[in-house]
Amino acid sequence: MTTEPPERVGVWLIGARGSVATTTVAGRAALAAGLHPPTGLVTAGPAFAGAGLPPLEQLVFGGHDTHPTPLPKRAEQLAEAGVLPHGLPLAVADDLARADAEIRPGGPQPDDPRTDEELVSAFAADITAFAAHNGLARTVVVHLASTEPVPAADDPRAPASALYAAAAIEAGCAYVNFTPATGMHAPGLAERAARAGLPHAGRDGKTGQTLLRAALAPMFAQRELAVRAWSGTNLLGGGDGATLADPRAAAAKNAGKARALADNLGDEPEGETHIDHVPALGDWKTAWDHVAFDGFLGTRMVLQTTWQGCDSALAAPLVLDLARLLARAHALGLSGPVPGLGFFFKDPDTPPPGLAEQHRELLALADRLAGRS
Amino acid sequence: MTTEPPERVGVWLIGARGSVATTTVAGRAALAAGLHPPTGLVTAGPAFAGAGLPPLEQLVFGGHDTHPTPLPKRAEQLAEAGVLPHGLPLAVADDLARADAEIRPGGPQPDDPRTDEELVSAFAADITAFAAHNGLARTVVVHLASTEPVPAADDPRAPASALYAAAAIEAGCAYVNFTPATGMHAPGLAERAARAGLPHAGRDGKTGQTLLRAALAPMFAQRELAVRAWSGTNLLGGGDGATLADPRAAAAKNAGKARALADNLGDEPEGETHIDHVPALGDWKTAWDHVAFDGFLGTRMVLQTTWQGCDSALAAPLVLDLARLLARAHALGLSGPVPGLGFFFKDPDTPPPGLAEQHRELLALADRLAGRS
Amino acid sequence: MTTEPPERVGVWLIGARGSVATTTVAGRAALAAGLHPPTGLVTAGPAFAGAGLPPLEQLVFGGHDTHPTPLPKRAEQLAEAGVLPHGLPLAVADDLARADAEIRPGGPQPDDPRTDEELVSAFAADITAFAAHNGLARTVVVHLASTEPVPAADDPRAPASALYAAAAIEAGCAYVNFTPATGMHAPGLAERAARAGLPHAGRDGKTGQTLLRAALAPMFAQRELAVRAWSGTNLLGGGDGATLADPRAAAAKNAGKARALADNLGDEPEGETHIDHVPALGDWKTAWDHVAFDGFLGTRMVLQTTWQGCDSALAAPLVLDLARLLARAHALGLSGPVPGLGFFFKDPDTPPPGLAEQHRELLALADRLAGRS
Amino acid sequence: MTTEPPERVGVWLIGARGSVATTTVAGRAALAAGLHPPTGLVTAGPAFAGAGLPPLEQLVFGGHDTHPTPLPKRAEQLAEAGVLPHGLPLAVADDLARADAEIRPGGPQPDDPRTDEELVSAFAADITAFAAHNGLARTVVVHLASTEPVPAADDPRAPASALYAAAAIEAGCAYVNFTPATGMHAPGLAERAARAGLPHAGRDGKTGQTLLRAALAPMFAQRELAVRAWSGTNLLGGGDGATLADPRAAAAKNAGKARALADNLGDEPEGETHIDHVPALGDWKTAWDHVAFDGFLGTRMVLQTTWQGCDSALAAPLVLDLARLLARAHALGLSGPVPGLGFFFKDPDTPPPGLAEQHRELLALADRLAGRS
Repeated sequence: MTTEPPERVGVWLIGARGSVATTTVAGRAALAAGLHPPTGLVTAGPAFAGAGLPPLEQLVFGGHDTHPTPLPKRAEQLAEAGVLPHGLPLAVADDLARADAEIRPGGPQPDDPRTDEELVSAFAADITAFAAHNGLARTVVVHLASTEPVPAADDPRAPASALYAAAAIEAGCAYVNFTPATGMHAPGLAERAARAGLPHAGRDGKTGQTLLRAALAPMFAQRELAVRAWSGTNLLGGGDGATLADPRAAAAKNAGKARALADNLGDEPEGETHIDHVPALGDWKTAWDHVAFDGFLGTRMVLQTTWQGCDSALAAPLVLDLARLLARAHALGLSGPVPGLGFFFKDPDTPPPGLAEQHRELLALADRLAGRS
Repeated sequence: MTTEPPERVGVWLIGARGSVATTTVAGRAALAAGLHPPTGLVTAGPAFAGAGLPPLEQLVFGGHDTHPTPLPKRAEQLAEAGVLPHGLPLAVADDLARADAEIRPGGPQPDDPRTDEELVSAFAADITAFAAHNGLARTVVVHLASTEPVPAADDPRAPASALYAAAAIEAGCAYVNFTPATGMHAPGLAERAARAGLPHAGRDGKTGQTLLRAALAPMFAQRELAVRAWSGTNLLGGGDGATLADPRAAAAKNAGKARALADNLGDEPEGETHIDHVPALGDWKTAWDHVAFDGFLGTRMVLQTTWQGCDSALAAPLVLDLARLLARAHALGLSGPVPGLGFFFKDPDTPPPGLAEQHRELLALADRLAGRS
Repeated sequence: MTTEPPERVGVWLIGARGSVATTTVAGRAALAAGLHPPTGLVTAGPAFAGAGLPPLEQLVFGGHDTHPTPLPKRAEQLAEAGVLPHGLPLAVADDLARADAEIRPGGPQPDDPRTDEELVSAFAADITAFAAHNGLARTVVVHLASTEPVPAADDPRAPASALYAAAAIEAGCAYVNFTPATGMHAPGLAERAARAGLPHAGRDGKTGQTLLRAALAPMFAQRELAVRAWSGTNLLGGGDGATLADPRAAAAKNAGKARALADNLGDEPEGETHIDHVPALGDWKTAWDHVAFDGFLGTRMVLQTTWQGCDSALAAPLVLDLARLLARAHALGLSGPVPGLGFFFKDPDTPPPGLAEQHRELLALADRLAGRS
Repeated sequence: MTTEPPERVGVWLIGARGSVATTTVAGRAALAAGLHPPTGLVTAGPAFAGAGLPPLEQLVFGGHDTHPTPLPKRAEQLAEAGVLPHGLPLAVADDLARADAEIRPGGPQPDDPRTDEELVSAFAADITAFAAHNGLARTVVVHLASTEPVPAADDPRAPASALYAAAAIEAGCAYVNFTPATGMHAPGLAERAARAGLPHAGRDGKTGQTLLRAALAPMFAQRELAVRAWSGTNLLGGGDGATLADPRAAAAKNAGKARALADNLGDEPEGETHIDHVPALGDWKTAWDHVAFDGFLGTRMVLQTTWQGCDSALAAPLVLDLARLLARAHALGLSGPVPGLGFFFKDPDTPPPGLAEQHRELLALADRLAGRS
């Protein structure tokens, strides 16, 4: 236990003016001000008391984004759409303005003349300046940009997410990939992060259909029920929905979804998973799943689920959780993929695949971060 | 490892001509004959290899029932209703007839002049004769009778399920209560079982809605999502549906359901659970659940599930599992409530309440039965 | 066609500070001011152009209620709950205040010493004074009070809804019963209305599950599919949910629901319909229906529906529709039950039961009101 | 009314050994023998009494198919899969064998050297021989072959369905297209049928999701509710599912589905409709629909439906209905598209689009066929 004042910790968001980032910044402010209970924030649970995580009030936000709409305006748009509570944008206007002032343009833009190396250095310089300017003990870079298409095999340029991951390493930062983008999976990057003693975590936040599948699929395996087909359809509007209307982006997303099923069931069952862009739904998403399974003597049975959630509200608290956990891991000198974070991701770095087991591993990580194990 | 021939083990079914019992007898025969893979049979999984469970072929069936329709006829009715595969009753006709020949009338009938003590002795004598006649090493009594109403506070007579449980003790048998009836919960019985060195397990098999709830409820708790209301409706026909149309029987069933939610969520949420008798559905049941929960910043979200299953096909393999596990526990000298069986029950003798944790405890029991721990 | 300025028409709401009434008053103001398109307002459709209905701007609101919270405050509560758009209460504050000033206390209160006749006279005097004060050509009384229990057979007092219906007749007003309460069904009242040359309509607005059933049930009949069971569960919070938690109130509601099925299918199928009060859902309601039907050669099939709607937003436009239609019918001298309004009610005065046929009858009424037939 | 013995009428099925055809032949036999009530058979309703439709017993089956498995064997497979009742194939074995003996190979096979004209003549000759051989008064050709891909714009060969339609004309037969294939829509064919005085009907039987949409979509329009998005997913196994896994075949199917929505709602809403091949489901199909709509003041609401049906059991009685109706229309000298049959089709020749209105038109046709109008 320490009597020093707690350190200030940076959270650098790639895609800092998106819906998830805006909800993260506004939500942190609301929780720190006591305006809302910490519903949905996993690290607010008793298991994380004493784990040395940075308090919410000590987080300082900045990030990259190419969109010009400032955060206070974005927050108003989200309140209008029912994603943020009415009145919240006004109540946390100062926090939103302060974070917005720390947003840098990012890139690369289509006609950007800079080489990949120049871009990485520029991004890293932005992060370093942010840390120095705010007197931060350390910074966690969190990738939240719109889903990136699966890179074409013959594309000579690195995907943007890989440049940002490289910049995180160059700036000496822990790194979280909350999207299905390449990020730290680009050739050589994970090794560089490990050599630099930096922890990282990914990828693709588990916030809806895959969360549910990770909770349900083990039930079938444990009961020796034979899942014959698992089909699903996701309907979502908002920015992510538009991005996922691109089949290559959807492919990136679906790879993680399929893996969650196959890892839990042993085999990949029949069935497709669709992601439909339905602008009328705004930031809300609906996921329908249909599971056809065989019981005793081949009797055919069916489970259906419908999940109706708000994407940003599901993702934002996990962003805060991961930033806090990675900051602490970094402070303790952990490097490479942090074990025990599969609970948060569709396509995690490490097994196990079942949600309950993942939660157990997360509690073990909490003990480790607390020095209890 | 032994070179002796495996022992023959009795399975004495209370309600031996009901749908679950008929499916259990027919299904065992089908599996033993290699006609079907052991889908839905938990103890067929690799974790139970080496646990010393009696092989399916060594099980010998008998039981009590007051209904006159013989098992071969009951099996045909179930095949007609799509519960058993067509052709199966004929293929396993010998097994059905053999089990039917071991069924005794049971009771008490409305005008039965015998005292409780006389009934217990008569039931126990039936079981003892069955064991002697068949040269059984031991017998497990499994209570499968129609759901019994919650006993009225001032009723001087013991409920029938308690008489059968007492008979199991008197006959020196392990005991499983697969229904919400009183059974071993009657005053003094559990103590007598323990003194007699008999293992037992209960109560109320977890085969549908509560199975799903035990898999899903921990997800909300682990993610710190606030469940505000959990509502549900069960539609079922068949004998159990008719019984549950009696509000006092439904009350017995629902107590277990409510406990599963409260134990997993910490608090009992708003919401009711209905059980409707819909004769048109026959042995099939449909359970709809609606979960209203709050996410980050109070955002309201909803999960709905629909489970469509065949009651007997869900229950029967678990009856085989429990008979095998209790026989082995008895052979090893375990007595009292067998720990690690909460996985099978709505209202188990021991925590934990979450399905994944219950499965872990079951694996620990497998290790113990195997002498691996 | 007339060149005179349109007449002003009163709408006197029984239950004038409830959610439906508040939404009706606020919504009319929003539409009249052009703030929203007339979504959900049936009489805004082209079929009603030229039918001589009073324009929305000419409606003047008043009513009875025993609750003290004024309409502007009620509207803010509804906006907070997501029922009214944010900002609307402020935008139509004048309209809300003006209507609130016309609300009288109503009754009877539990210890009210007045006789039924005195109450009817007092209510009628309130309505007459409202009409005189506002220079109204005529007034339509609309019953919106909380669902009233089914009257006990031996209760000597008339139910409150009957007193209000009698007051409407005494005040020479057209009358609409939007609830399952007794209203104009009390002995002798319908005859008195007819003698007084007053039109009326009822009962119990068809806004959710029964609307859907009236659209779907004819499909089964037309295709000669045999519905074997139609089961349903309604979850709702809000005031109506609390009222319906009283079994006698739910019974009143369910009578209409069952009639809609029986009339459309020829026979009443198996299955129950539950109404659960779930406060967490606020003014939102969810209705799940499960229809088990037989197809060719007895093949068993299932249709399930889930309807998630906002009760007040579903009901309020129909209140405006009915007030406009009854005002016009009154002006044209129609008396007694107005034919062609079954489209709006669960338990209508006249057949047919199918939604499409009811819509056809409504269009015929529009023609009649327009003098086109 | 006639005292002559009723005429024998041929039903020539293109795709005569498919699931729908097999169910049609077996089902007719079961109904004629009184083994099952005529559930799902629209023309069994009282409105069609006296319409002069050929009795079921007078129908004689034949057809084209390239598959070698005989009908008795196909029926057994369907009984095994739960599509036909167990025991039915045996009970109607004679009928199945008799129809199978009338099946001719059809085509064209991939390497068929014959020209289109030669194929048409050969098909027509098969039909003519069947009619002569059986002493039939007339024959109705019903197209039931697997969904045909949308023809490529530059394909010089006519699609197979057009060849069969031409053969029907050449053989002087009424014609029904129960699939989305081109059939009578090929250039010039409809004109030839009209010149030849032949009635026809199409296309694409309305048996599940679109049936439901045609019943529900008018409700939204009648209530002035604004449908913003209508999304859907179909899961089906069986032969049709496999065919529809080809995107060009699915495109043909979906064109009809989209039209049903657009015609009923005035506008085509947002949302996609998927058709997934899920072999595990066999002949069963599940259709999930999600309708996002706006109510009063823009309040967002949702309707979801899940339809679980057996494709062949839904289609087969309609095939019998259409054969009977077209035979009677032919006998009365109607030619060209028969009005009043939109009730049966996804993509009908004539409006209206709503199911209730379509049913009214069908009843008008019944009156016309009966000489009542």
